[in-house]
Parts: sequence; C-alpha cells; structure tokens
Amino acid sequence: MSNGNLILVRHGQSKWNESNQFTGWVDVDLTEKGEAEAVNAGKLLKEKDMLPDIVFTSLLRRAIRTANITLNEADRHWIPVIRNWRLNERHYGKLQGLNKAEIREQFGEEQFMEWRRSYGTPPPEIDPDNEYAQTNDARYEFLPEVPRTECLKDVVERFVPYLVDEILPRARRGENVMIAAHGNSLRALVKYLDNVSEEEIAGLNIPTGMPLVYEIDPAGKVVNPGGTYLDPETAAAGAAAVANQGNK
Amino acid sequence: MSNGNLILVRHGQSKWNESNQFTGWVDVDLTEKGEAEAVNAGKLLKEKDMLPDIVFTSLLRRAIRTANITLNEADRHWIPVIRNWRLNERHYGKLQGLNKAEIREQFGEEQFMEWRRSYGTPPPEIDPDNEYAQTNDARYEFLPEVPRTECLKDVVERFVPYLVDEILPRARRGENVMIAAHGNSLRALVKYLDNVSEEEIAGLNIPTGMPLVYEIDPAGKVVNPGGTYLDPETAAAGAAAVANQGNK
Repeated sequence: MSNGNLILVRHGQSKWNESNQFTGWVDVDLTEKGEAEAVNAGKLLKEKDMLPDIVFTSLLRRAIRTANITLNEADRHWIPVIRNWRLNERHYGKLQGLNKAEIREQFGEEQFMEWRRSYGTPPPEIDPDNEYAQTNDARYEFLPEVPRTECLKDVVERFVPYLVDEILPRARRGENVMIAAHGNSLRALVKYLDNVSEEEIAGLNIPTGMPLVYEIDPAGKVVNPGGTYLDPETAAAGAAAVANQGNK
Repeated sequence: MSNGNLILVRHGQSKWNESNQFTGWVDVDLTEKGEAEAVNAGKLLKEKDMLPDIVFTSLLRRAIRTANITLNEADRHWIPVIRNWRLNERHYGKLQGLNKAEIREQFGEEQFMEWRRSYGTPPPEIDPDNEYAQTNDARYEFLPEVPRTECLKDVVERFVPYLVDEILPRARRGENVMIAAHGNSLRALVKYLDNVSEEEIAGLNIPTGMPLVYEIDPAGKVVNPGGTYLDPETAAAGAAAVANQGNK
C-alpha cells in the first residue's frame, strides 16, 4: 500500500487579521489578499502534483472559502468535502473582537502572551449576550453547549479524537487529505503528529496559505517529521510574519 | 413531523451558455453574470427564510460554484455538501463544444430539436480522443465506463434512483435540501416529482439562478405540485429566455 498525505492549509488573511483583532469563532471573511493566498496554494498543489482526494474544513467562512478557492484553482473542486466544528479556530473568549495591540497595551506583555500562547489557561469567558458570542448560531445548535472560551489544550482535546477517527485513517489508506483550518487547530494537529511538548507548541508558527504536507505510512507513522512545505522559501518568511502579530 | 423542502437551483450563466455552445460534461466555469445570479439566489433564500440544511451538487464546476456562492450569500456556507456525478448535466455526446446555431443551420431544425429535446434518442457518441470527452478525467475514474452520450431518459435512469435513496428521504424527515444542478438533471427531477410525461418534459424550461421549491410531506408527497418559485415574476421571464436558446 502506498503512503498517503495530510495537506495542511491555514486560511489566508482575514479582515480581522488585517485589522489586528482577535477572531476565534467570529465568522469573518477573507480579504482580497487572503483570496489571493488561496489561489496561490491551489497553484502550488497543481504544480507539485499534490492533489487532494478529500478535504476537511472547519465551520468558519475563512477556512471554507480558502478550501473552495484553493481546490477550484487546482481543478479539484469536485472532491468530497467534510465540514466539522472540531477543526474550528480556538475560541478566544472575551477577547473576540478586541484589538490585539490595545489589549497588549492595556494588560501588559505578560498577560497578553499568556492569553495568546499559554497551553492550559483560557482567556475570560465571553458574555452570552456579547455580539461576538455564538449563542444563537444555527451551525452549533446541535452542541449541548457552545464554547465561551478555549485554551490550546481545549482545542487539542476536541480536535485530536476526530483527527484519529476520521482523518488519519484515510491518509493511512493512501489518500491525500487536505485540511483547511486555522492557526490553533493546525497547531493541535502538528502537536499530535510531531509529538511536540506543551511548552514548545506555543512557539510554533504555521504560515497562512502555504500547503504543509505530512506523509503518512500505512501504520500511521509520519514519514517526514515536521512536514514539508510545497514552497519552503516563502513559508519561512510567512512563519516569521505570524510570530510578529500583536506588534503595532 | 413538519414538511421538508427540495430547493432546486439551476446554475447561472456559464461561459458556453454565453457563446451558445453545447456544454454537457465539459467543465466550463460561470461568467460574471452567472456569479451574480448565484449571489441573487442566495439573497432570495435569506430573504424568504428558506435556509438549506444540506446541499447536493453535481461534479461540475458551474454547479459547485453556484452552490458555494449562493450558500455564502445566504450565510449557510457551513452546511454539509454532497457531490455526485448522478446530478451532472446530460452528456451531449459529439455535440459537446459545438455551436448551437451552427448545428441548427447545418443539420436543420428537426434534427437539432431531436438532439436537444427528444426523450429517448441520444446524439451520436463523442470520440474518446475528442478534447471534450471525459476519457481520462480523474473524477470519473471509479466508473466502469464514462458516458459518451446521453438522452434525457439516460439522465432519468441514472439520477432518479439516487434521488429516491439519498435526497428525498431527507426532505421527508423535514430537512431543507438544496440541489444545485443543471437544466436536464433538474428536468429529470421535476419529471419524477410532478409525474410529467415523456412528451411534455422536453417542453419544460427551468430558469437559471431562480430557487424553485417543492414542499415534501413525511410520506414523500409533493404538497405544491409544480413547485413554487421564491421570485415568481423574474422566474417566468427566465424560463422564456431558456426556451429561445439556439436562436441566433
């Protein structure tokens, strides 16, 4: 049996990436730059002949549209698509909608970095009446309770079981599985695949719109630890840019 | 149990609708006008509160993009999507890629109308080496044989079993099921739902980008025979335009 691949694509620039606001579960659209990043990702998939057989996305517009645009560009618009809330971005609690630079100024560098990068400490819960809470959002109706905040540990705990049951078995059977998702759900994925420690995972930055490929053998083992970028040079520059978010 | 709905959306103008060429299984994209029609369909779904719970599409780009754009506009981009070749447009055989007006001139009105509208007579088969055949198309790889031509009867025979097994049961359970498809696959659907005769179905024209809703009760019976357009006035004008295709 031949090896399969997980093809990770982090959505391109969103309107709140541009305005430097915490987004989380708020359903913000891509900017034109974000759309162009998705087109570029699709071109790369085609150029490198890394063609997905199936795509998984979150329930958020920026990941869904990234998948649609990328696959359309790669002439793989017709493959099956599965959307699941377990791939969603981390819920940023009360920080959703707030400006990153202002929070940093108001609460100081240490608190800011703890909220952004601590593994186990979530930000304060969002008020259910807050316009950026998902209290009556039809897409989460089936959940017993909509999250009001999450730390990275929460994302790992909700996403990894789904990854193990629904996504990895396909790669083990030799399929190319594209995953269009978010900074923190992809971090949870990489933590699992590369067995990264809780301390180190916070420092790992996945650039937007750059397909990152993990080759998976039939036993479920990663053949290329750390993954392989389809366009390694641009990816290195992209990761540095993500690390600088929150600076004015 | 409450009634469900089938929401039929025929894709908007494609590049070959515009240039008056037979398209069939050739994977032609929407024009800007076609994209605008899809946006309009999404606005209507939202305005009339006819929100899909799930969407079925063909494997063709013009239907897939119509679904993506329509759902994005209706804020239902996150619903499950199922793509299946059984919803594809009729395969137009050797006519694929040829200009409708030229064929009419060359072969005469009678032959032209027979190819376009006869229920049981397919056009001549397309040569497997023709650039507009789907001989090595990865999306049909799993089929024992890729069609080389189809009449409407063939479309009915391939689509109705899928409709009965996979689509109708959802509407019977009370779901709103959107179907983004093509002139002839939607004709096959309407033939089944309204029990239209083989003679009459050829004369039925479904306008593009106008959601047509069939209400389905738990027994699977159509509550509103003939369906209901969300925007009846514009739909009447659209149907007349389709009937005139092939005129210079």
